Amino acid sequence: MEERQISKAVIKRLPRYYRYLGEILNNGVERISSGELSNKMQVTASQIRQDLNNFGGFGQQGYGYNVKYLYDEIGKILGVNQSHPMIIIGGGNFGRALANYDFEKNGFVTKAIFDIRPEIAGSTVRGIPVLMMEQLEEYVAREHIEIAVLTLPKSKVAEAAARLTQCGIKALWNFAHLDLDVPDNVVVENVHLVDSLMQLSYRISNYESEENEKV
Amino acid sequence: MEERQISKAVIKRLPRYYRYLGEILNNGVERISSGELSNKMQVTASQIRQDLNNFGGFGQQGYGYNVKYLYDEIGKILGVNQSHPMIIIGGGNFGRALANYDFEKNGFVTKAIFDIRPEIAGSTVRGIPVLMMEQLEEYVAREHIEIAVLTLPKSKVAEAAARLTQCGIKALWNFAHLDLDVPDNVVVENVHLVDSLMQLSYRISNYESEENEKV
Repeated sequence: MEERQISKAVIKRLPRYYRYLGEILNNGVERISSGELSNKMQVTASQIRQDLNNFGGFGQQGYGYNVKYLYDEIGKILGVNQSHPMIIIGGGNFGRALANYDFEKNGFVTKAIFDIRPEIAGSTVRGIPVLMMEQLEEYVAREHIEIAVLTLPKSKVAEAAARLTQCGIKALWNFAHLDLDVPDNVVVENVHLVDSLMQLSYRISNYESEENEKV
Repeated sequence: MEERQISKAVIKRLPRYYRYLGEILNNGVERISSGELSNKMQVTASQIRQDLNNFGGFGQQGYGYNVKYLYDEIGKILGVNQSHPMIIIGGGNFGRALANYDFEKNGFVTKAIFDIRPEIAGSTVRGIPVLMMEQLEEYVAREHIEIAVLTLPKSKVAEAAARLTQCGIKALWNFAHLDLDVPDNVVVENVHLVDSLMQLSYRISNYESEENEKV
């Protein structure tokens, strides 16, 4: 099923399904109809069925979804059943805040933080060591790092992205406020905080009552 | 033109147009064709024309776009030509990192950080004072705060959102990893970091070479 082209909109909804199913599972619920899931998530039942049909269904007519099975299967589709070694580039406030997040429970394991300031070399954040940028290439190769989180100033991010790309990183999670130019085989996911704020202010000015962002 | 229903996809692209036009303007470019803008932004020229037509056009046949004019007009549409007073709820790593961002240049002015720990009351981050949650309602009303940034633990965010809603906040910028249940007149924009990471890992596993996230 990996061969099929799944739309970006579906991929954006999957993490939310996963999150809700995790909550439902924690509450001890064993099965759920697409109607109930729909109520809880404020997505139509037919949308849910259609989204899950992209991956082969998972529901049984008249029975609904087995919550645990659906949760695990979506987890596999998202790749969160695997461990993804990750590094953070930039040991400033933002990098340190991210290092404090427990992304591990979803398989994203932060192994090190890289910075250029010798005075913080050897310090740790939640046990995660701060290393120097000179060590980057060697470390990425040795530790089989998949994901680099970019929390650098805008002026430095292109150079860091180029170095990471050259040493075979698979994915960049970019918090710098610009779009990166990388080879096609490197996945980039941008978190442009200012863009998100601007969408907020647009919606304040234009007051979309019924359209609260649910995804 | 505010009466028209503009699609969410268009609203998501506007901040990016704004960002690119700002860069082009800084480079001293006075006018640009939709073709050139398209090359730079990796969006088709017809998409750009179509998006901007939602707001009445702005281009002149055979002349292209006046960069400064287009930049200013998109700024007005996004509401970034106005000042938006903002507070951060939660003075942890993440809240402090956000307080250090210069969102002011786009009109988002962080006035205070709220926390419950008396030991950080009265301290500042980049000149922004840390206040106690007891002062929240009075402060929001007095300072006409529009936006509250939620960087609280998941278990505390619902209560904070309810208090903010009751004292008339217009918008919540939510970094907590859950969807908020608020009245329809409150705008919510979620930044679910884990969802973003899961999209990244999906794309690593399913390797979408030609589909790098550009927006």
